Amino acid sequence: MPVYGVSHVDNLRVCVVMVGLPARGKSFISQKIVRYLSWLSIATRSFSVSSYRREEYKLQPTADFFDPANIDGLHIREQATDDALKNIIKWMNEENGCVAILDGSNVTKQKRQLVCQVLKNHKIEPIFLESFCDDETMVNSMMLDINATSPDYTGKSSKYATEDLLTKINYYKKYYEPMDLADEKDLSFIKLINVNSQIIINKIESYLESRIAYYIMNLHIKPRYIWLSRHGESQYNLEGKIGGDADLSERGMKYARKLKDLVAQYIPNHENIEVWTSTLRRTNQTAQFLPNPKKQWKALDELDAGSCDGLTYDEIEREFPEDFKARDENKFEYRYRGGESYRDVIVRLEPIIMELENQENVLVITHQAVLRCIYAYFMNVPQEESPWMSIPLHTMIRLEPRAYQTIVTRIKADIPAVSTYKEKGTSKLGESSNGGNVMAGEVISSSSSGSAGTASGHAVV
Amino acid sequence: MPVYGVSHVDNLRVCVVMVGLPARGKSFISQKIVRYLSWLSIATRSFSVSSYRREEYKLQPTADFFDPANIDGLHIREQATDDALKNIIKWMNEENGCVAILDGSNVTKQKRQLVCQVLKNHKIEPIFLESFCDDETMVNSMMLDINATSPDYTGKSSKYATEDLLTKINYYKKYYEPMDLADEKDLSFIKLINVNSQIIINKIESYLESRIAYYIMNLHIKPRYIWLSRHGESQYNLEGKIGGDADLSERGMKYARKLKDLVAQYIPNHENIEVWTSTLRRTNQTAQFLPNPKKQWKALDELDAGSCDGLTYDEIEREFPEDFKARDENKFEYRYRGGESYRDVIVRLEPIIMELENQENVLVITHQAVLRCIYAYFMNVPQEESPWMSIPLHTMIRLEPRAYQTIVTRIKADIPAVSTYKEKGTSKLGESSNGGNVMAGEVISSSSSGSAGTASGHAVV
Repeated sequence: MPVYGVSHVDNLRVCVVMVGLPARGKSFISQKIVRYLSWLSIATRSFSVSSYRREEYKLQPTADFFDPANIDGLHIREQATDDALKNIIKWMNEENGCVAILDGSNVTKQKRQLVCQVLKNHKIEPIFLESFCDDETMVNSMMLDINATSPDYTGKSSKYATEDLLTKINYYKKYYEPMDLADEKDLSFIKLINVNSQIIINKIESYLESRIAYYIMNLHIKPRYIWLSRHGESQYNLEGKIGGDADLSERGMKYARKLKDLVAQYIPNHENIEVWTSTLRRTNQTAQFLPNPKKQWKALDELDAGSCDGLTYDEIEREFPEDFKARDENKFEYRYRGGESYRDVIVRLEPIIMELENQENVLVITHQAVLRCIYAYFMNVPQEESPWMSIPLHTMIRLEPRAYQTIVTRIKADIPAVSTYKEKGTSKLGESSNGGNVMAGEVISSSSSGSAGTASGHAVV
Repeated sequence: MPVYGVSHVDNLRVCVVMVGLPARGKSFISQKIVRYLSWLSIATRSFSVSSYRREEYKLQPTADFFDPANIDGLHIREQATDDALKNIIKWMNEENGCVAILDGSNVTKQKRQLVCQVLKNHKIEPIFLESFCDDETMVNSMMLDINATSPDYTGKSSKYATEDLLTKINYYKKYYEPMDLADEKDLSFIKLINVNSQIIINKIESYLESRIAYYIMNLHIKPRYIWLSRHGESQYNLEGKIGGDADLSERGMKYARKLKDLVAQYIPNHENIEVWTSTLRRTNQTAQFLPNPKKQWKALDELDAGSCDGLTYDEIEREFPEDFKARDENKFEYRYRGGESYRDVIVRLEPIIMELENQENVLVITHQAVLRCIYAYFMNVPQEESPWMSIPLHTMIRLEPRAYQTIVTRIKADIPAVSTYKEKGTSKLGESSNGGNVMAGEVISSSSSGSAGTASGHAVV
């Protein structure tokens, strides 16, 4: 029997129907929802109408294609919506999809009624999600983003793209009817005005719907960093033991001292940073030299290894051979006897993620498995891969969430530490884990968090 | 150092300013917020303007008091708001209050500007929370509630109360200015239209504010029940051991069989009930004969006793005398070595509570400490008392949340079981825990969940 966390979603079939002019962040919001719900193990996929239009009609159209007077253009766009809807229904029926996102513009009331009807006929609950934006600075920044990333403008100059996009927006404006609080009050909808300066929530009743609304409420688009670090090397790390509540090793203590310098050197306005640790000694000792305000979170404690707590991987392989094998086979789902699985950790981390989305300027000092889960969220790493990511000791990590990607920078402290990385199928640990051959301050990885039309991008770290 | 959960609230000073006509559920919403945040250990208190008016001016006024032409009435009401504000400021400064609720009507823009200014001058962040309701059925049901419970109508006939309240509402309507999306767009506010059919959220930025909005989004006022049960008696219960993952005893198994009958007999539409269990054997075995759909939640697992898992209280007293004493002294905060405290359990239960608020028709089969925490939320039991509540084995509990109280019914299965209740200062367990001398189907307790003007009511169970 599956174990439930934030939301149980049996038989749930919801389609989030995006509404809004071009350059209103619809794809950005779609991708964030996909990433968040997928991370919570809810089968979620975005279906981009424009990608259907491109894929099936091989079109990289100019703005005139969107002129309401252009009957061919209109027909092809209608057809692309139909195709997207058909694929949503197919995906729900054949692959047990739970939450689909129809990433299109759906700017007329008539179109929305039509989409609503099709979905309801297939027992899919529609929620409309409109991004209304009349703040010019916001729109301009989103336009720049589209010019740089949209396949419609691949190989085109920035000047051309801007002008073309503006013309396209103006065509759309001719027939755009923002969602109407009176006329459309029978639809479930969330209307975002200038991102989330004002949010109107209409007829949102189910738990999952309210959760999506809450998640969007916490998003913001201010530039910011999130800082992460594992605790310094511990006595248990030296002995190859997992779990426990050991003190730092001598080298771990050295990292704790060095961390103070790294924070001062790399974190802008580091006086204002809040430091979050787990309740375990090794993270608190790692934070001890930082003068910043600190918060202890039980939710940041290491994955609980239950009966295997305090053992080495060798001992686990010997004493619990079946468990050892089962864990290697499905590390995400495997729950230690009397302990936790990665899935369990994600459930308890969810409030942390929500708060990290809302927050600026936090340094999180925590543990290998927990960092893997946090990392998986920000980098959109698929479930089955996240427990196998390498997060070395004695390295400060900077995440920079951007519209369509999170940029990662690893800052190596240059203090040796053992490896705690166990490869699949062996009980042996790696030789070194000090960030490999990455140099101090070097950006070693940046990864797209998924592209329109797919449920998951993939971070190479 | 305190351990953080859902929200860390250092230096947080927020005042939720209620807005709306009489009989719009303002006090109901205030009390729910107080109960929810207090349960999360956030110091929250509601300050009811009408209770200041009554306490200080000994008034049980007729509707004419609220006539805008009545200068004396106006003056006294202004004074009551001032008094409430002064007390909010005093409470924040002297008692480290975090979230105050100004439970008044605040129906004019001018009044709201004034309140906003006073709060900002004292470094308190105002959030306005308007309950706008034009659904007559809802208003009527809230009027009945006020007639029955308001001290303004103590000793008065229901007919008198209804007429007087209607006159009062009409006076208020003369000067009511609903919150204005344009004029008041610089204020942080949440506007509820017909409870939560439509919600408008303006400039809600902090994590705690978005959390309050999310909580309100999940509230509903449909009549419903929540059904609770501990697992049947386990082998560990028989041996007086805590924690573990033991099977049911013979009598426990008998309860599991009986539970099927109790569900069929007492739960209306019991086919539609969802059964939630923890991941531990004893709750799953207790649910095994129920034909209903089941969900396993790690968050419903018993409080983790860490190093003391599998010991009897005698053994704990012997082996960890200091811990035994510390736990008795502050059972809410005490965290077992490598395990959890009651506070930790509340943090992980928070999503369950949110979902229970949203949901109808759930039977939760879980453990003593977890049930105490769920119970404490619904019954508004103070933190320090909740770990000492007696929740007997082999008893199904029905909670019926109403506007100002939750009504509890205990349904005894009449199958003997050991007591698992340990009194303070001893390692001995009680003699019997089979619901005492309560009879099958009998309502044994109903308790107000707090009255206006106080932060906590108290459940006698």
